[in-house]
Parts: sequence; C-alpha cells; structure tokens
Amino acid sequence: MLFGNAIVGQSGGPTSAINATLSGVIRACLDNKNIINTLYGMKNGIEGFLKEDFVDLFSFFEDSRQLRLLESTPASALGSCRKKLPKPEEDTAPYERIFEILKKHNIRYFFYIGGNDSMDTVDKLSRYSRLVDYEVRIIGVPKTIDNDLCITDHTPGFGSCAKFISTVVEEIIRDVSVYTLDAVTIVEIMGRDAGWLTASSSLCGMVNGKGVDLIYLPERVFNAEQFVNDVKEALKKHPDVVVCVSEGLKYKNGEYVSEDEHHTTDAYGHKYLSGTARMLTHLLKREIGCKVRAVELNLPQRAGAHIASKTDILESIRVGKGAVSLALEGKNGVLPIMKRRNSRKYAVTIGYANASEVANKIKRVPAYFINEAGNGVTDECIEYLLPLIKGEHYSNYRDGLPIHCIID
Amino acid sequence: MLFGNAIVGQSGGPTSAINATLSGVIRACLDNKNIINTLYGMKNGIEGFLKEDFVDLFSFFEDSRQLRLLESTPASALGSCRKKLPKPEEDTAPYERIFEILKKHNIRYFFYIGGNDSMDTVDKLSRYSRLVDYEVRIIGVPKTIDNDLCITDHTPGFGSCAKFISTVVEEIIRDVSVYTLDAVTIVEIMGRDAGWLTASSSLCGMVNGKGVDLIYLPERVFNAEQFVNDVKEALKKHPDVVVCVSEGLKYKNGEYVSEDEHHTTDAYGHKYLSGTARMLTHLLKREIGCKVRAVELNLPQRAGAHIASKTDILESIRVGKGAVSLALEGKNGVLPIMKRRNSRKYAVTIGYANASEVANKIKRVPAYFINEAGNGVTDECIEYLLPLIKGEHYSNYRDGLPIHCIID
Repeated sequence: MLFGNAIVGQSGGPTSAINATLSGVIRACLDNKNIINTLYGMKNGIEGFLKEDFVDLFSFFEDSRQLRLLESTPASALGSCRKKLPKPEEDTAPYERIFEILKKHNIRYFFYIGGNDSMDTVDKLSRYSRLVDYEVRIIGVPKTIDNDLCITDHTPGFGSCAKFISTVVEEIIRDVSVYTLDAVTIVEIMGRDAGWLTASSSLCGMVNGKGVDLIYLPERVFNAEQFVNDVKEALKKHPDVVVCVSEGLKYKNGEYVSEDEHHTTDAYGHKYLSGTARMLTHLLKREIGCKVRAVELNLPQRAGAHIASKTDILESIRVGKGAVSLALEGKNGVLPIMKRRNSRKYAVTIGYANASEVANKIKRVPAYFINEAGNGVTDECIEYLLPLIKGEHYSNYRDGLPIHCIID
Repeated sequence: MLFGNAIVGQSGGPTSAINATLSGVIRACLDNKNIINTLYGMKNGIEGFLKEDFVDLFSFFEDSRQLRLLESTPASALGSCRKKLPKPEEDTAPYERIFEILKKHNIRYFFYIGGNDSMDTVDKLSRYSRLVDYEVRIIGVPKTIDNDLCITDHTPGFGSCAKFISTVVEEIIRDVSVYTLDAVTIVEIMGRDAGWLTASSSLCGMVNGKGVDLIYLPERVFNAEQFVNDVKEALKKHPDVVVCVSEGLKYKNGEYVSEDEHHTTDAYGHKYLSGTARMLTHLLKREIGCKVRAVELNLPQRAGAHIASKTDILESIRVGKGAVSLALEGKNGVLPIMKRRNSRKYAVTIGYANASEVANKIKRVPAYFINEAGNGVTDECIEYLLPLIKGEHYSNYRDGLPIHCIID
C-alpha cells in the first residue's frame, strides 16, 4: 500500500454537482486515514497547484455538516481554471515543477475533477509519472453538465442541469400559455458541441401534458427555411409555441447561428457562444411577424443547485468515492465511469476507463435519439434521460437564502 | 345577504403566486356555499368573460389535492389578458354587455386578480355598477411581481420572484467566482418602472458573505460614466464582479438604456424592454476591456414556482380569502391589502383600499431605500425585503418533474 498525502482539484466549467463529487473524494479519503495522512485541496486547479495554493480539507471538513452543505453548493468550491498543459514530449518544464511539488508535500494521490479537457491533464500527468522515479496515482474524476464524455453512460452534473432545464422550461410553458395571441418563445440551452442538455427539454410535458413544440440539437445541420416552416406548422396547432435550441447550432456552411455577434475564444480555442435564440427571433419576426421572445437559460442552468437531481447528486458522490477506490487499488491515469445496468429498474455500477480514452473526445447525441425531421427527440432518448432527473435535492436555507459551503 | 353565483378571473403578467391567490378565493367561496351557489372561472380575464368562456371551479376543485397543486403552479391557471376597458362615461357598450352576462348567470360576486392595470378594470366596473339596477360586488385582488401597487405594504407574488432572484443570483455569484481572471457579470432583472425586484438582489450575501457588488434601480437616472467608474473600483477589490440592473434603467434624456434595440409597445403603451444588460456589456468591453457577460433572468424569474417564498404563498392565499370576505361584507370596488404590523417579529394583517386609489398608480422604491451613490440599497431596504422571501414553498414532483394544476 502506498502511504502519503492526497490532493484534489476542480477544473473546467462549474456544475451543480461537482462539489458533491468533491465531497465523495473527501468522504472516501477520511475513511482511509490509515493510508492517506492529509487531503489537500488545490485552489483553481492546476494553476493553484503550481503556486502551492493548498487548503487542508481534513481540517476544514472536521465538522461533517459542512460536507452536507458542500453537496448543495453550486460551482467549484475549490475554484477552477482552464489551463492546458503542453505535451510532455515537447515541454517538460511544467511537469518537472509539478513533480517537485508532489515530492515536497509527499503527495501520492492526485485527484482531478473535470471534463474532457481535464482528462487530457490527467492523461498527460499519468504518462509523465511513468517516466520518473516517484510513485503517484493520477486519477481523473468526471464531471460536466454537457454529458459529452465518452464511455461513461452519463456524466455527474448532467442530471442536475437537465432537471433545472426541464423544471424551468415546464414553468415557461405555463407562463407563455396565458395569452391567446400567437407568440413564439425560443429557449436557448447550453451545449456547444453536444445537444444532451437541449434534448432534456423533451422531458417537459411528461407529467402535465403540453410539452416543448420543437427541439433543435447541434448534431443536425440547422436549416433556417425548415425552422420557419416548423414554427408555422406549430402555430396552426396552438398560439403559444415553445422552441428549445442549443447554443451550438450551425448552418450548413459551418457557421454558428449566433456567429455574427461573437468572436472571442477561450484558452482551448473554443468559441464563446451566446445569442442563438436572439438571432432566431430576428428571423421569425421577419418571416412570420408574430411576437417572438428569446430566453437564454445562461449561467443559472449550470448553477441551479437549489433544484438538483437527487439521482445525480448521489451518483456524483459515488463517483468521487470510486475515484479514491481506484487510486487505492493502484490504478493510474484512469477515471471512474458509470455503467447503466440492464435491468427494468434504473441502476448504475461504477467502473473505470483510461483517461486517454476520454480526453479531448466528445460524445454526441446519437442519430437514433433524434427524430427524422430533426426537430425533436425519440422515445429512446426520453427513456435514457428520464431516470437522470429523478428525485429532488434541495439546498439548506437560512432566513430564506440558500446556505453554501465557502472554502477560503 | 346577497345570494347568487361568483366569478373569478386573472389578468396581467403571470406570477408564481397568482394561483395561490386564486386558491384562496376558491377556498373561501367553498366555505360560503350557503351564499355562493357556484364559483365560475373566466378564461383569459375580461376577454373570456365577454365570450362567456367559463369553467365551474366548484366541480373542478372537488378534489382538494388539486388546490394544493394550484398553489404551486406558476402563471395564471385561468389564462390572462391585457385588455383595457374604455371609460364608462365615453363608451358604455362593453359595460352593457358585461352586465347582461352577469345577470344572465346571476353572478353577484366578481373577483379580478391583477396589478394596477387590472385595478383600473375593477374601478370602472364598480363605478358602472352603481349606475345600474343590478346588485353586484366587484372586488379586486392584488398581484404583481413588481411590488409597485400603492397602499399595500407589498404585493402577493413579489416575495416569490424576489426569492427566485436572490437564490439564483447567489448561485451565479458562486459560479463566476471560480476563475481568477477579471470578469464582470451583469444580471438583468424585471421591473420596468420600479426597482423592487432588482433591489431584492441585495439579499444575496446575507448568509454566505460575498454579495452583489453594484445595484442600479430605475428610480435613479443612469449615468454611464459613473457606472464604468463603479465597475473599475469594484474590480480593484476582487476579479469576479456581479452587477444587477433593472430592465427599466433610463439615461438623463429619458431614453431607456436598452432603447436602440426595442421599439414595440403593449396595449397600454408600455414599451417592451429587453437587452439592458447586453447594452451595458458593450459599454464595459469598450471602456474596460475585460470579460463581460450578460444574464437576463427573463421569464424564469416570474415563473419560478419551484422555489417560491412560503411567506408569499401563504399571504397570497390569505389575500384571496380576504377578497371574498370583503365581498360578503358588502364592499364594492375595493381590494384587500397587506399592512405590516409594527412588531419585532414580522406579521401582516389584511385591510382594504379602494381600487381607484391603486389603479394606474405606481409605487416606486423610496429615496431612503437607495444609497447615496445610487449603486446599492440601504439597510432599511434590506430590513423591509428580508421577511418576504422567508420559507421555501416547493412544487410536488412526479418522475422528477413538477406537477402543475391545468384547468382546461
């Protein structure tokens, strides 16, 4: 058994459940105090690691009530970063520095919670670790609202975001149905490359009848003419038409629907998107002339911890614990994943995959989850999505305001 | 005692609590079945009334579990309208038609739930009723997310919207604090003429420490130069600056900050607004050059019944019941209002006001609730707001989705 200290960090975009995963890591490390002497938290991911900006999580979470609060705190309690490491073959300097720090603090377990970009960091670090004379387990822990990681059935964080979306869009459907005038409401949902979150709006109407009229995912080329026709057809059925669109919709020429407004990119070269729904309102006003409203669910969808999915939060904790088990089993360069059991009642088991199989890859919504017309999803898709939003995980409140866990 | 039937309708913009008020009216009418033979619901307010589009609410709500669902259903379960009646002195035709319908169905109690525009309808109808030989009680029932009705301490529906705003902005504060780069997030909040909802973002940080940095209400003229300076000062303190702005901000020349994008108006001549935050992001990008993001809380804020204020929902039911009491006492052309008791512990009593005192008037945030610099609120304001968001009123869920009450 490898005795020593452990460290955990968070990276990439925030979710409502990434702190539940952190809690799972902390809980499992606390259960293995005979092996893990101390668990550090690195502030702002690998950025803070390089500055040795650490916090002692065993001391901070001595009072276990803080862990319960952590599990309903949105975003990354340890902070985040979007730093990408160079290839170890091309530039070893940052790796030398990282391993210097690991040795200095006798860190033998390194947990990095993040999406496909972060799994790239895990893969590179674990590959480098095999070249040097310092035994350490580099373990990824998956999270992303986007549900676009390969191999795992779904990702921790997705279910809570999908639950916020389906709850809020259900409420929007009520809101826009009160008037009798023709009006189209276009709801823009996150998901640059994969339409999983937009697809989750299909769950609306399962309980109350009327659902979303039209759903457009980035997996299909966006056709403006067909879109206008689809909306016209929907308006023939009832006056209050609700359309959900992914922020990542693209025309045939590869341009984003939102393109003419936004040109900035992040450190990975991804374009920042916003304004797809707004662009489409202009189109509909011109082509149909009725009242059109754009609603961007924006940051609240990924931060909506006040109405998280209980299934997601419990699974996120399990995945965090699973990462610690993998580390203690001696694995390196892997991440825990979820496998859906082939049973009538929904259940998952925790397995694992190599970070290299997941890094920098994107799992898109498969063709058989999208209807033929490309303006909705299939029953198979709904069947896949529905169990993931089950159960309500609420925040704790004081004086009517949510109590969060603040690590500083 | 005046025996006969009753009718209730909803008008104006939806809120998360207007159906709780409807429930209060239904519950009180059910308690007075010895006087009120049947309670009708008019679909889409006065518009549906004129078409005799009625539903029998006593039959519909025979199963009282539906009333519990109604109390957590957002928007107007009976539908709404924005129809404005002409002055009875100028055009009696619609009034003659209305009283024809009242007589035909032996309707002696008329309840109209709405904001200051709807109280105009109540005032006109009750004035006309005094001119004709048909005894009827026309009673207004206040609701509006905007909290801009005169005389009442606050309005049913405001507390729930304020709770959604403070909860979600609290979550946004967590979300934007994860990175270390300078970034400004501008959150746009509803409230065309009154800044009550925007002011409620000041409640953020009461529990978790860091709150909203800057708050701009429409009660103060918006000064772009001062705004840029305020943001620069805030960025000196920490990199993640959160600003809340009202959709109704105006420059000194009377133009809306959002003006160059929107020119449509509603039936009352109000301008449709949207895009204040977006306009301000352009300004900050130009003047400061850091990352800036606009978040419009949009429809979800007024439809967020899944996290309503328990205080608001219970008061909304009381106000609905209060309207029925006023009617049974023989009042006409009045509405129930809330008076805050002068006690250490927050409590309200239900009184009443004449619809004419409330109709077409707007209660703005008073000067002593706004700080000297015009970029925040005072402690008195927070003291006024805090009790209104207390307690959590959740939706019921099935399969992870909220169950709403659909009256059709």
